Amino acid sequence: MHNSSVEGLTVELGERSYPILIGDGLIGARSSFESHTAGRDVLLVSNVIVAPLYADTVRPALSARRVVEAILPDGEQHKNLVSIARIIDVLIANRYARDCVVVALGGGVVGDMAGFAAAAYQRGVDFLQVPTTLLAQVDSSVGGKTGVNHPGGKNLIGAFHQPIAVVSDTGTLGTLPDRELSAGLAEVIKAALIRDQAFFAWLESNMDALLAREARALAYAIKRSCEIKASIVACDEREQGDRALLNLGHTFGHAIESATRYQTWLHGEAVGAGLSMAATMSRALGLLDASELERVNRLLERARLPQRASEVGHSVALDAMRIDKKVKAGRIRLVLLRRIGEAFVTAEYPDDALDRTLAAHFAA
Amino acid sequence: MHNSSVEGLTVELGERSYPILIGDGLIGARSSFESHTAGRDVLLVSNVIVAPLYADTVRPALSARRVVEAILPDGEQHKNLVSIARIIDVLIANRYARDCVVVALGGGVVGDMAGFAAAAYQRGVDFLQVPTTLLAQVDSSVGGKTGVNHPGGKNLIGAFHQPIAVVSDTGTLGTLPDRELSAGLAEVIKAALIRDQAFFAWLESNMDALLAREARALAYAIKRSCEIKASIVACDEREQGDRALLNLGHTFGHAIESATRYQTWLHGEAVGAGLSMAATMSRALGLLDASELERVNRLLERARLPQRASEVGHSVALDAMRIDKKVKAGRIRLVLLRRIGEAFVTAEYPDDALDRTLAAHFAA
Repeated sequence: MHNSSVEGLTVELGERSYPILIGDGLIGARSSFESHTAGRDVLLVSNVIVAPLYADTVRPALSARRVVEAILPDGEQHKNLVSIARIIDVLIANRYARDCVVVALGGGVVGDMAGFAAAAYQRGVDFLQVPTTLLAQVDSSVGGKTGVNHPGGKNLIGAFHQPIAVVSDTGTLGTLPDRELSAGLAEVIKAALIRDQAFFAWLESNMDALLAREARALAYAIKRSCEIKASIVACDEREQGDRALLNLGHTFGHAIESATRYQTWLHGEAVGAGLSMAATMSRALGLLDASELERVNRLLERARLPQRASEVGHSVALDAMRIDKKVKAGRIRLVLLRRIGEAFVTAEYPDDALDRTLAAHFAA
Repeated sequence: MHNSSVEGLTVELGERSYPILIGDGLIGARSSFESHTAGRDVLLVSNVIVAPLYADTVRPALSARRVVEAILPDGEQHKNLVSIARIIDVLIANRYARDCVVVALGGGVVGDMAGFAAAAYQRGVDFLQVPTTLLAQVDSSVGGKTGVNHPGGKNLIGAFHQPIAVVSDTGTLGTLPDRELSAGLAEVIKAALIRDQAFFAWLESNMDALLAREARALAYAIKRSCEIKASIVACDEREQGDRALLNLGHTFGHAIESATRYQTWLHGEAVGAGLSMAATMSRALGLLDASELERVNRLLERARLPQRASEVGHSVALDAMRIDKKVKAGRIRLVLLRRIGEAFVTAEYPDDALDRTLAAHFAA
């Protein structure tokens, strides 16, 4: 382990507070897991892509009494109640008691499912996350959201269940496809846009290092993104108010994902385009100036993220936005930018500003 | 409505506090529901036995914007993830948003399923209970436990999800079979045994009125049982410590239910026999005197509850107890009585006292 690049933070949630450890080589180090899993029964939940890469490294580092594995098929299409039932079947077949630990090794899909299974098994057992994608490291590590999809919509079934710890090994990003790295960077840029102008400037200076997967730059970007998200979640654990800021880029992004049936765009790519749309709309409302809009678009471009969804018609996109969870009393609530580093939520805007934004970023 | 017999209490759980209303005729009164359901989208979850009896009474009293129904088959064998998926399908098919209310109309099985579906839908929507059995009114109304069974065991999948209100109409007990009334009384007697000697004496004086289903006596017994349970749950919402007291009679009772495969004994009947066993064991340890043991058994008998399980062998029962959730570090933790009105949890007891207790209450 290269200790020089280990970062850490604590997500403050009262008695549900937990640590996030970030660094290169953490998943093979006993010290990463010792206080959480040593001597306990562990269920390692992973998928057929990630398990062959990292399970042999993680297993001995857990110092567990028993390690049983639940290896799921890969892909969002398996994020459903059937997979939850499979995970719980394994827990029960091995007679795991309430004091067991469910460890999620993989990306956001694995984490969401393992977390929901841990939330539901015996009404809640401990859950530890080992995210292996940048998106999961910066996004799923904080917030406690777990769940599965329903044919009628994404993440419609789930629970808020905080992990007891998160171990984010930047070394695992070495095997991540380029598109997925960029998708993760969208959430990093989002965090900076919401409330940290200085971090946005740091990203402008360090984007090349991040794309080159330099451990130290990655660790800092992950840490700062988690800190920003954690500070927002800490005020609003159950998503009643401020937490809506985290949806910056997401209402637009979900429209892209939904219109393309979640087949072609990665979530982070859709968020990237959504960030550009939020910035465009903020500019249309006279909030951002032209140079700020340009900085946003330029950084997204350097992160190799798309800014338009030209295969989707803009009326289709508008319909998709209307059935999003964020709609209240029939009005689409949007997260917009007052400036780089300051986002806010509003349902008060001229409809034609939204129309013009959609027209600029979607097909006619 | 006969206002003379309306009782109420508040379950104090900080921001998750909620009221319980108890009385005759409440389910037909708008005032019972107004502040919780008026103008909102309501999903009424019930089963094929209860819905025909009471749904038409409840529906108009809800003053809801929309009332959609999910009517489940009757019986514990349907308390599984398939039923949860069915409830959630209905919520999604009707595009119910996060501000909807799930109303459970029925006994404990309906409440457990409706509650878990409400906990999981969009990671948690409001849930209101209208329990129609005595057991559900005294037991499921307080504690926030929701969930379903797994072929490997009961209630292994679920969530803690507090209702926003409970409306317990003693009038609905008029249609309850005698056996189910007695099963509910087991939990009432349990509450008195755990921490209220005076309530135990009140039950000795009022058992005939309860069996005659007199509204005023029922309302008081339900209220006092809920208060006792609430005072214990308030200290220990997530079941780490004191809440184990509520398992008085349950570790023994679960052994009966498990050994008879949940086919012949009602849960409350098994708890009744379990209370007798806990008292016998407490006597064997020199904690209860002979007259106290006699009072316990006499009250159970008057409530028409069994005290022995002569169709189950005592070694089968012991095995069943060992796989109960309450086992810690291989040792069966028991709830015993220091006296009537004072229960305590212990794993420290001579094994032969347990053996003799089982021998006295089960077959050889």
